[in-house]
Amino acid sequence: MALTVKQRFFLTILVLAFPLSAISGDPDIISDFVVPMEVNNTLLDGNFFTYTGMRPLINSDPPTNFTVTKATMAEFPALNGQSVSYAVVQYPAGSVNPPHTHPRATELLFLTYGVLEVGFVDTTNKLFTQRLQAGDIFAFPKGLVHYQFNCAENDFAVAVSAFGSAAAGTVSVPSTVLATGIDDEILAKSFKTDVYTIQKLKAGFAPKA
Amino acid sequence: MALTVKQRFFLTILVLAFPLSAISGDPDIISDFVVPMEVNNTLLDGNFFTYTGMRPLINSDPPTNFTVTKATMAEFPALNGQSVSYAVVQYPAGSVNPPHTHPRATELLFLTYGVLEVGFVDTTNKLFTQRLQAGDIFAFPKGLVHYQFNCAENDFAVAVSAFGSAAAGTVSVPSTVLATGIDDEILAKSFKTDVYTIQKLKAGFAPKA
Amino acid sequence: MALTVKQRFFLTILVLAFPLSAISGDPDIISDFVVPMEVNNTLLDGNFFTYTGMRPLINSDPPTNFTVTKATMAEFPALNGQSVSYAVVQYPAGSVNPPHTHPRATELLFLTYGVLEVGFVDTTNKLFTQRLQAGDIFAFPKGLVHYQFNCAENDFAVAVSAFGSAAAGTVSVPSTVLATGIDDEILAKSFKTDVYTIQKLKAGFAPKA
Amino acid sequence: MALTVKQRFFLTILVLAFPLSAISGDPDIISDFVVPMEVNNTLLDGNFFTYTGMRPLINSDPPTNFTVTKATMAEFPALNGQSVSYAVVQYPAGSVNPPHTHPRATELLFLTYGVLEVGFVDTTNKLFTQRLQAGDIFAFPKGLVHYQFNCAENDFAVAVSAFGSAAAGTVSVPSTVLATGIDDEILAKSFKTDVYTIQKLKAGFAPKA
Amino acid sequence: MALTVKQRFFLTILVLAFPLSAISGDPDIISDFVVPMEVNNTLLDGNFFTYTGMRPLINSDPPTNFTVTKATMAEFPALNGQSVSYAVVQYPAGSVNPPHTHPRATELLFLTYGVLEVGFVDTTNKLFTQRLQAGDIFAFPKGLVHYQFNCAENDFAVAVSAFGSAAAGTVSVPSTVLATGIDDEILAKSFKTDVYTIQKLKAGFAPKA
Amino acid sequence: MALTVKQRFFLTILVLAFPLSAISGDPDIISDFVVPMEVNNTLLDGNFFTYTGMRPLINSDPPTNFTVTKATMAEFPALNGQSVSYAVVQYPAGSVNPPHTHPRATELLFLTYGVLEVGFVDTTNKLFTQRLQAGDIFAFPKGLVHYQFNCAENDFAVAVSAFGSAAAGTVSVPSTVLATGIDDEILAKSFKTDVYTIQKLKAGFAPKA
Repeated sequence: MALTVKQRFFLTILVLAFPLSAISGDPDIISDFVVPMEVNNTLLDGNFFTYTGMRPLINSDPPTNFTVTKATMAEFPALNGQSVSYAVVQYPAGSVNPPHTHPRATELLFLTYGVLEVGFVDTTNKLFTQRLQAGDIFAFPKGLVHYQFNCAENDFAVAVSAFGSAAAGTVSVPSTVLATGIDDEILAKSFKTDVYTIQKLKAGFAPKA
Repeated sequence: MALTVKQRFFLTILVLAFPLSAISGDPDIISDFVVPMEVNNTLLDGNFFTYTGMRPLINSDPPTNFTVTKATMAEFPALNGQSVSYAVVQYPAGSVNPPHTHPRATELLFLTYGVLEVGFVDTTNKLFTQRLQAGDIFAFPKGLVHYQFNCAENDFAVAVSAFGSAAAGTVSVPSTVLATGIDDEILAKSFKTDVYTIQKLKAGFAPKA
Repeated sequence: MALTVKQRFFLTILVLAFPLSAISGDPDIISDFVVPMEVNNTLLDGNFFTYTGMRPLINSDPPTNFTVTKATMAEFPALNGQSVSYAVVQYPAGSVNPPHTHPRATELLFLTYGVLEVGFVDTTNKLFTQRLQAGDIFAFPKGLVHYQFNCAENDFAVAVSAFGSAAAGTVSVPSTVLATGIDDEILAKSFKTDVYTIQKLKAGFAPKA
Repeated sequence: MALTVKQRFFLTILVLAFPLSAISGDPDIISDFVVPMEVNNTLLDGNFFTYTGMRPLINSDPPTNFTVTKATMAEFPALNGQSVSYAVVQYPAGSVNPPHTHPRATELLFLTYGVLEVGFVDTTNKLFTQRLQAGDIFAFPKGLVHYQFNCAENDFAVAVSAFGSAAAGTVSVPSTVLATGIDDEILAKSFKTDVYTIQKLKAGFAPKA
Repeated sequence: MALTVKQRFFLTILVLAFPLSAISGDPDIISDFVVPMEVNNTLLDGNFFTYTGMRPLINSDPPTNFTVTKATMAEFPALNGQSVSYAVVQYPAGSVNPPHTHPRATELLFLTYGVLEVGFVDTTNKLFTQRLQAGDIFAFPKGLVHYQFNCAENDFAVAVSAFGSAAAGTVSVPSTVLATGIDDEILAKSFKTDVYTIQKLKAGFAPKA
Repeated sequence: MALTVKQRFFLTILVLAFPLSAISGDPDIISDFVVPMEVNNTLLDGNFFTYTGMRPLINSDPPTNFTVTKATMAEFPALNGQSVSYAVVQYPAGSVNPPHTHPRATELLFLTYGVLEVGFVDTTNKLFTQRLQAGDIFAFPKGLVHYQFNCAENDFAVAVSAFGSAAAGTVSVPSTVLATGIDDEILAKSFKTDVYTIQKLKAGFAPKA
């Protein structure tokens, strides 16, 4: 079957335009679920599949600090092999969730109360921002640097975030760079500044006495 | 290196006990995200990554019917390749979400208001049930039959459900079996009953005149 | 490179039309095969890779009951990590393999003797049926409800089924719903019938005294 | 939690002993199935999921040549995304299926008639052999060189083979090496022989005049 | 089979200690390779599988600036579906490859000339550093922040880096944070500093007039 | 939305032309990296991520025999779960790397010194060859038979090869076929020659006395 030059060209666009799919998500299991060995399989019941660690959030006053409460495989072992997890994020007025990445999953943030300014930067260094209102859902693609800011002057905000992994992981940019002991000179060259500025920034992340 | 008989036995237990991991989740992308071709890439902005279809739920009265509102790849194209999606499920008092499966993802149900009786059946035909209160999270493993029931007499219930796929799919058991035209005789034999009973059950799922 | 409006539209169709691929199949291994630890590796030979459990079927008379004989990872440990398994299914005249799903694999049924009426229902609730004759192969996609019926009046039927997983799993709809103890009221609401009808159906699946 | 030296040692064995799982199988789909665009979706029915190309094998006399009949994605488009395929292999008495590999799937051979001598070589160059009788199933792990030989003097043999991929691919060792034009000198060095021997071997694989 | 308490405990350790495997790497193909449609398949030859873009590096003088030369799917289309790519990195004396991540692959750096100080930070904020000499290979795990520094006073360094993806992607921390227009106030709060310091840092990354 | 016949035809081409993606690469991990249990996690440092086994190659004279030096998961345990590995291949003048496959990864060969004639055969039995010069990169797709030949009369050649798996595996065609004890008669039939020729070829691969 012969294709015209034009058809070939057109198809080429498609080849270039469609990113190939790879696999995300994490390990599934070839049983229905994974039971830790210390759990007596014959006594296994619905409690194993239930996580109650978010209950206190329902009727409590909002916290005065920026707070993340997680339901990942670490807190909720039944998620092992199920490729999904949650976090509840609470933002006092004016608080920031600093730039960070999740190496193993996309975050799907569902703003349930308040307002948020959110943004992420793709690998071409383009910034995408949005001002969310309650009920909005925003997708932060896997591995990209993103942040949230409660831009309200007086009101808190609350979001539920779902992740397409039971263990998405978090790499916080400021503390990764400034609180782990990377050499001052290397950071000064990286950030095109002087060692003094780096040391001042690092001071903000030093452990409290 | 020689292993004793006991060591070999012990290690064997492990081989049998640990289900091997397979892959769940759906296609990732080897770009940061996938932009549908009709979207002008240079005009792409934060709106593409925002889904506003849940906004009306925030301040509305609860519906009088059992209602599922979805944010999957079909409604929110940015989820293409991101392996995660949401649904909001609203249950009037006494309502049931009938037995169903999601062929392509585990469901992680987060009960935000009310009470629910939930259950699922594993592939050994064991039923796992739980009575959830607000703040509880329950995991329905991928591909297994499960249901929810708002057992409250007077109050509604609301849940947010996250899925480890952008297109989890739903197979509702009653309508799949009774509303698709499967032969009465085959169903009668399958359910160990008579054709008359099957026809009566089917009548409940017939399209309204 | 500028695309015309028409080109963009056309490409959009493609984006919508092509379901993205995810991963099916189960875990491969980054060795050639997996040997259970109780097996002395130096004594390992061709027997480990051979399953003889189907031999009795070759020269036996067909059974008088509907019968499934499996060669999955449970019966044949060498399949661990190899993503494929078998079942031989024998249908006496008039017998039914009731509606069921395989959560972890597509079934590829190869009818080697007799006739079968087969069907499956997709997630849009569309029923696909076919009448197979000997030599036909039919694909039941992963996770979808399907059934087979030997519609012959006097003759048995035999099929070989291959699965793209070493542990496909089976969820039988009637027994999952009726033989696991799901609450009568929940089932009555789900099937839009009364508790009495549910109890009569359940009686058919009760353990024999 | 402190582990004793012995415990650490033991656990290390496990790390070394358990090959990590990777993914095999091929692409699943995040729809139920994939329909080629030339098929009118509204007319789609059970025929699309049926392959009739094996029917002629059921009642024919066995062929006089070694014969492979395939039902892969190429012949049966519905297998696209379903991770499984079939071949029927017919062996006249004394015939050989020469050493070959399947780059994309394990082969699970089900001998339905006759006897076969089979073997494969793992990546440590260990040969595994077996003499199969009717009803036996043998697993040839993905990517490894394997062969079959009908060692019966007068009787044919028939096998059904399932693959954990819709497009397993085949690399036949003799024709890959001898019938593709690889330089004689390179082959002579590779096989530690002379160019004359290579040319004689190649002659056996030359296209017939 | 009954396990003692001690056995159960021990097995539990294993469950916790062994991270489950997920899938990395990117899309394979269920053909041997992917040919862009504009390439006439019948004319396809070895050139398609050859990348010559690194030739100039072989006999050139080392560059005076830090330089990365890539052979990824973008430059070398035959890598589409092959899950591997290369970069050659050249470091003048004293130069730094600033903190960055690769969202889609582990980097395996092979230092072929000179010395390098390298480091990465894991998701628990632990810094791992090493001083490499020529011939050393260092693994930077997928998605983690890492850097390299040519600590030699007068000599350049050269490394070949392999990635387990054809399109690993790069997120450079300083330019992602400082050169993309993220709001000064958000950055000031994130880095626990003032807007003035942020603006001074940003100036270093401003486009040259 | 109606498509014209022509559009349908065109889209069909696409369906046929685009091989679906599957997964290659090997297991990722849902932690940052995998630490063997005998390693005290609190003492873990940069040495674990460093492989020094290639250092001797940097300043040594080239070997007089064809030599492969590997850095795979077996030699460098930190690669466990990281989906990438290396080999350095050294070819004296006139030496051959005989036809072989890697069952679990594509090889990306980077010729750093000398010249090489390389080739591979796809599953349609088409041979692709190339003469490489220093600086060239060549892709040998996963699972396909390939070889290299240093066609220089007097000069050695050196290549670095990266693999998209931590344990790619190698199946050498000549030794797999001739040095593992496959029955002479089976080989004679497979290679369309006589038992005497097979025995002579096998003699070249017999263990030295």
